[in-house]
Amino acid sequence: MTESFAVDRRYEAEARIRRFLDQENPSTPCLVIDLATIRARYQAIRAALPSIDIFYAVKSNPESDVVGTLVEQGSHFDVASPAEIDLCLERGAAPSSISYSNPIKKAADIAYAYSRGVRMFVSDSEQDVRFVAEHAPGSSVLVRILVHSKGSTYPFGNKFGCDPEMATDLLRLAHQLGLVPLGIAFHAGSQQLSVEGWDSGIADAALIAAKLRAEGIETSTVNLGGGLPAVYQASTPSLDDFAAAIESSIARHFGAVRPRVMIEPGRAISAEAGMIRSSVVLVSRKSYSDERRWVYIDIGRYQGLAETEGEAIAYALRTSRDGGPVGPIVLAGPTCDADDVIYQHTRYDLPLDLKAGDHVDILHAGAYTSSYSSVCFNGFPPLATYCV
Amino acid sequence: MTESFAVDRRYEAEARIRRFLDQENPSTPCLVIDLATIRARYQAIRAALPSIDIFYAVKSNPESDVVGTLVEQGSHFDVASPAEIDLCLERGAAPSSISYSNPIKKAADIAYAYSRGVRMFVSDSEQDVRFVAEHAPGSSVLVRILVHSKGSTYPFGNKFGCDPEMATDLLRLAHQLGLVPLGIAFHAGSQQLSVEGWDSGIADAALIAAKLRAEGIETSTVNLGGGLPAVYQASTPSLDDFAAAIESSIARHFGAVRPRVMIEPGRAISAEAGMIRSSVVLVSRKSYSDERRWVYIDIGRYQGLAETEGEAIAYALRTSRDGGPVGPIVLAGPTCDADDVIYQHTRYDLPLDLKAGDHVDILHAGAYTSSYSSVCFNGFPPLATYCV
Repeated sequence: MTESFAVDRRYEAEARIRRFLDQENPSTPCLVIDLATIRARYQAIRAALPSIDIFYAVKSNPESDVVGTLVEQGSHFDVASPAEIDLCLERGAAPSSISYSNPIKKAADIAYAYSRGVRMFVSDSEQDVRFVAEHAPGSSVLVRILVHSKGSTYPFGNKFGCDPEMATDLLRLAHQLGLVPLGIAFHAGSQQLSVEGWDSGIADAALIAAKLRAEGIETSTVNLGGGLPAVYQASTPSLDDFAAAIESSIARHFGAVRPRVMIEPGRAISAEAGMIRSSVVLVSRKSYSDERRWVYIDIGRYQGLAETEGEAIAYALRTSRDGGPVGPIVLAGPTCDADDVIYQHTRYDLPLDLKAGDHVDILHAGAYTSSYSSVCFNGFPPLATYCV
Repeated sequence: MTESFAVDRRYEAEARIRRFLDQENPSTPCLVIDLATIRARYQAIRAALPSIDIFYAVKSNPESDVVGTLVEQGSHFDVASPAEIDLCLERGAAPSSISYSNPIKKAADIAYAYSRGVRMFVSDSEQDVRFVAEHAPGSSVLVRILVHSKGSTYPFGNKFGCDPEMATDLLRLAHQLGLVPLGIAFHAGSQQLSVEGWDSGIADAALIAAKLRAEGIETSTVNLGGGLPAVYQASTPSLDDFAAAIESSIARHFGAVRPRVMIEPGRAISAEAGMIRSSVVLVSRKSYSDERRWVYIDIGRYQGLAETEGEAIAYALRTSRDGGPVGPIVLAGPTCDADDVIYQHTRYDLPLDLKAGDHVDILHAGAYTSSYSSVCFNGFPPLATYCV
């Protein structure tokens, strides 16, 4: 996929979303998802990584029609909970296409997944491997290792995964307990902008696979997790660049015995498909000498813009007044919460004539937005979502 | 209220909540609110501040029975949105007992509030004052000023309020537009631990009132906002200490012409009334040399523990294994989100024999928890709430 083709696609998607908004004029704030972009992004990743199985990270956007669209495309699914399993199955996904990739699972939830036909689990602890053996006997287990995710906008810290020595023992344990020791999983960190971000994890996975093979335990798979980036404002390396780097790492570290390779993209599929339309509630200054205006819109951190915490994700903005002179602003949400400020360190300039009632559109906001919405913080309803 | 009396009260509340949990054994996680504590906290604040009108900050816990209990007690209400107005009215609050204290309001929401009988609004901008004049003619307006909130666990930054010069102009404007220029509002910052936290705001309010009086504009009121703290683990100054400092500031700055004084406590009423019961999902280590266990529970930042962001609020924890030897832990939530770690810098020690299925109770968790819950992040449902 060439860059100009991708840019054309984005304009078309935005045009479809704007047509819907013009025709239906729904209350703001709302998220509109362009299902054609979901399809196009899935196809672009499949085209760039034809030998890798794509497991869509449902958590990035669990809208039912998004899942249904991806079922039609032949996607597999990375799920975090029983509710996400139910959602995929309701939309026609085969149980065999689902990986229960959350290493933190109640015994009852493992049993539930098993009862629904799920047979692939990711673990990172002895307890979880034993729970899987007890409540999902004979299933396949991937063991997640900790990797250091340089280059990621959201480095994953050390909440998930264990060190390679322990991971090797856990695969041995899975084998002993009658499970299928599938291989190693890792996560390069969300919104990973370095094409080399997966290399050290692939290297560790290959070392562990070789060590186990020497003991007579064959593993078959490596799970590359998420991390493929979405375009927000700055451009990112192309999918082809990521694919080349990942395939090169696999060939280098695994050699002749190529494993089955899984990848779990979330935002790389759903982010660019979505646009949030918000309305300006208030434009004000705090003092007569204030150089920046404060622009308050009707969505904030508690109605879906959770990823602006620490201003980690800087979304592109469009307003219904674009074209005239602009000036610097602070962007804030509508609640009485002082932390509900969206951007005050990241420089944004918006039209000088922006006023209450004007629209502020937040582009590429299809991932990690609607499902974060609070149920009713400050009495504001969750983010409404429409699919076109 | 003496300290030992307060401690007894807390034991009684915890006992009532535990009785409910033992009898009903609800699914975890859940929040249980003791309505007797809501009453007791309201009465304690009223007893300490008998000359000050209490406006409960509904946002801190908008559970319908909490609001109903406070209506019975004669509380007033600080609301942030039309939905919070509806909630108060449904539970029998008089429209005249409601202050629409969010300075960020759509014109349509002001009109809606007016249609429901609300006549008191807080503003901090020319636009909002003009919107109130247009859509809620003749109403009362408080203008919020920016104060610097030293001593607060949650300093309020500068999202709300304007400088005193602009605030004075806005009260003049309200007067010109036929509104009642009620006076000044400010917020000393949430969980304010310094009894002197309100002094500078009261001083500014008195100066502005005097300046306007000299012009023939009489203001009547000062709104001290929220900030009264809840007890989490460390003890806080007593309500009597806060009352003495606040009354002394009012007398010193306002002199003979005492204004009507409003205060908007939220967590000081609702936090200690609530306990969250969670279950341990997983206890693990990341490597054989790991000194700290990771304890994953079935609630995290996205199901209600939002105030643990940055580990700002360090809740007291009780487990079903308390009593034996303990060791250091990291506490984390159940989602696949790497930021869903509750405490890793704050030192917590939990029983060495803690295991999956055991309970971890989170004390004094009645404020700013359930309403923050995400609708379905990672497929986990919002926090269930029960009142006893």
